[in-house]
Amino acid sequence: MRYEIPYNEIKTSISGKEFKKIAIQLPEGLKRYGKEIIQKLEKEVEKELILSGYPCYGACDTKDKELEKLGIDKIIHLGHFKIPFKQSIETEYFPIKSNLKIKNTLEKTLEFIDKNEIGLITTPQHIHKIDKIKEFFKNKGIEAKTSKGNKRITSEGLVLGCNFSAAKIKQKETLYIGSGEFHPLGVALSNKSKVIAANPETNQIKEIGYKNFIKKRYSIIGKIKDLNDFGILISTKKGQIRYNLAKKIRKIIEKANKTGDLIAIDDVLPNELINFGYEAYVNTSCPRLSIDDYNKFEMPIITPNEAKIAFGEKDYQKYEMDEF
Amino acid sequence: MRYEIPYNEIKTSISGKEFKKIAIQLPEGLKRYGKEIIQKLEKEVEKELILSGYPCYGACDTKDKELEKLGIDKIIHLGHFKIPFKQSIETEYFPIKSNLKIKNTLEKTLEFIDKNEIGLITTPQHIHKIDKIKEFFKNKGIEAKTSKGNKRITSEGLVLGCNFSAAKIKQKETLYIGSGEFHPLGVALSNKSKVIAANPETNQIKEIGYKNFIKKRYSIIGKIKDLNDFGILISTKKGQIRYNLAKKIRKIIEKANKTGDLIAIDDVLPNELINFGYEAYVNTSCPRLSIDDYNKFEMPIITPNEAKIAFGEKDYQKYEMDEF
Repeated sequence: MRYEIPYNEIKTSISGKEFKKIAIQLPEGLKRYGKEIIQKLEKEVEKELILSGYPCYGACDTKDKELEKLGIDKIIHLGHFKIPFKQSIETEYFPIKSNLKIKNTLEKTLEFIDKNEIGLITTPQHIHKIDKIKEFFKNKGIEAKTSKGNKRITSEGLVLGCNFSAAKIKQKETLYIGSGEFHPLGVALSNKSKVIAANPETNQIKEIGYKNFIKKRYSIIGKIKDLNDFGILISTKKGQIRYNLAKKIRKIIEKANKTGDLIAIDDVLPNELINFGYEAYVNTSCPRLSIDDYNKFEMPIITPNEAKIAFGEKDYQKYEMDEF
Repeated sequence: MRYEIPYNEIKTSISGKEFKKIAIQLPEGLKRYGKEIIQKLEKEVEKELILSGYPCYGACDTKDKELEKLGIDKIIHLGHFKIPFKQSIETEYFPIKSNLKIKNTLEKTLEFIDKNEIGLITTPQHIHKIDKIKEFFKNKGIEAKTSKGNKRITSEGLVLGCNFSAAKIKQKETLYIGSGEFHPLGVALSNKSKVIAANPETNQIKEIGYKNFIKKRYSIIGKIKDLNDFGILISTKKGQIRYNLAKKIRKIIEKANKTGDLIAIDDVLPNELINFGYEAYVNTSCPRLSIDDYNKFEMPIITPNEAKIAFGEKDYQKYEMDEF
């Protein structure tokens, strides 16, 4: 397995007498280990264990209210760091450590780094190596700086798809260790600076520019202006509820003499949006959906910030990623 | 519009002072009217209205616990008859009447009816015509009999995808008015008798046999026997929770020296099942999934009854549809 599952910690956590039915939540990338995990735990713990089969896209994507219906009294959430909000069932988060060796990847980043100071950020699966990464760069004469971020961030140097606060260091260059382009793009937009993305899985290093991205989004914003009929998506995932923001966007849309209807949603499935038949959607739930998954949808799906720009409530030069 | 939306009744229902935020739930086939419905109501009622964007496949598929998170205090559920169970938010059901003229379809069924007594069943959208249908047949010298069904059925002659109790009339022939083949197939299996399915949308009449269907399912049951690793799906949709049945199935699977893990799920999405990687699934949620949607899944997905047959807990000659 590419990951270290903290079996002992999980066992300690669920073996308390008070818990009877325990649900295990896994993000999509870890679901294939669910069978192995539950079967191993079942052998060692005398408890009723149940896998959560809901899609799970982050620490914000919990299903306490739903699992309550089955009498679940403890949730083990694997693969993410805790986001501080109340849940109706006691929930413990166990981030999962990647086993990948990253030294080669770090060596390769040296060609891309121009300064002797960089900002450093990474994702939950690599964060346990952050001190070693700093040491690696220190030995090369480069200071890798991290930041605590805001209260949604529980581990220094961590970035989430909706929160780049730990990247806001006054550095001209930032190094991102992890996969995908969404996080480093968010950082580049947030800092308006150079970001080097190093992917330890593929061993590829890439400089991430944000200017082409902004151009593309402006073309979408341009189309939006001429449409009349908007669905405004409000997530009911615990960590993504932004009802007031949705109502604010509705007011902006109505001020522009257009229609905006509120839609409560959990997973934003393309078919459901087609069924409703709105010309476009403003998405106040997970920002990644509007950006990374844009092409999955048949109609435009934009962020609240983009809606503000489209309807003149925000200066078009102040494009920013949707964060919360 | 092909349907009659009971605007006045809905308005009366939501205009009570105590309700502030009202959610509107629509089944998939009615979602495209959601925009029209909410916009019309918003003009006439001073309330905050929000569409439920969750998939909705029946009266059992409610989202009270989820909508609670947004402070919703009333749910208007369109398109289904009430199923009697408690919900955490006051919920009112408004079945929707189809406007389709069905006289031609009824005339056409006469060629298929051999007896002067038939059982009569239909779906929520046509049930308001049931007395007229009876009258039509009476004038032709045929007595069309209906039954109250069990407590899950709130309107005489109504069939649901998980409940054919209103079809259990001691009749040799049953007439089903509605679309799709799942309901009449369920009735045929349930009564082991001839069922005539009349579709008012296409004006097609068809006799529904169940023998080929059983053959196909036996071939699936045959494959299941040789597999070792089962996921047992438990729905968290209010009207589909069958935790005890799932545990019973697990015991049967374990008795056969195989592994069965419990999985809590809402919408049963093919990708999620692939992610978990079980060889096959036993589905205790909506029965229609295992039958109608069987081909959407890459691995076998069977009903609890089929699992019982596969593992020798039930006589293979006693095949029956999964009902609850």
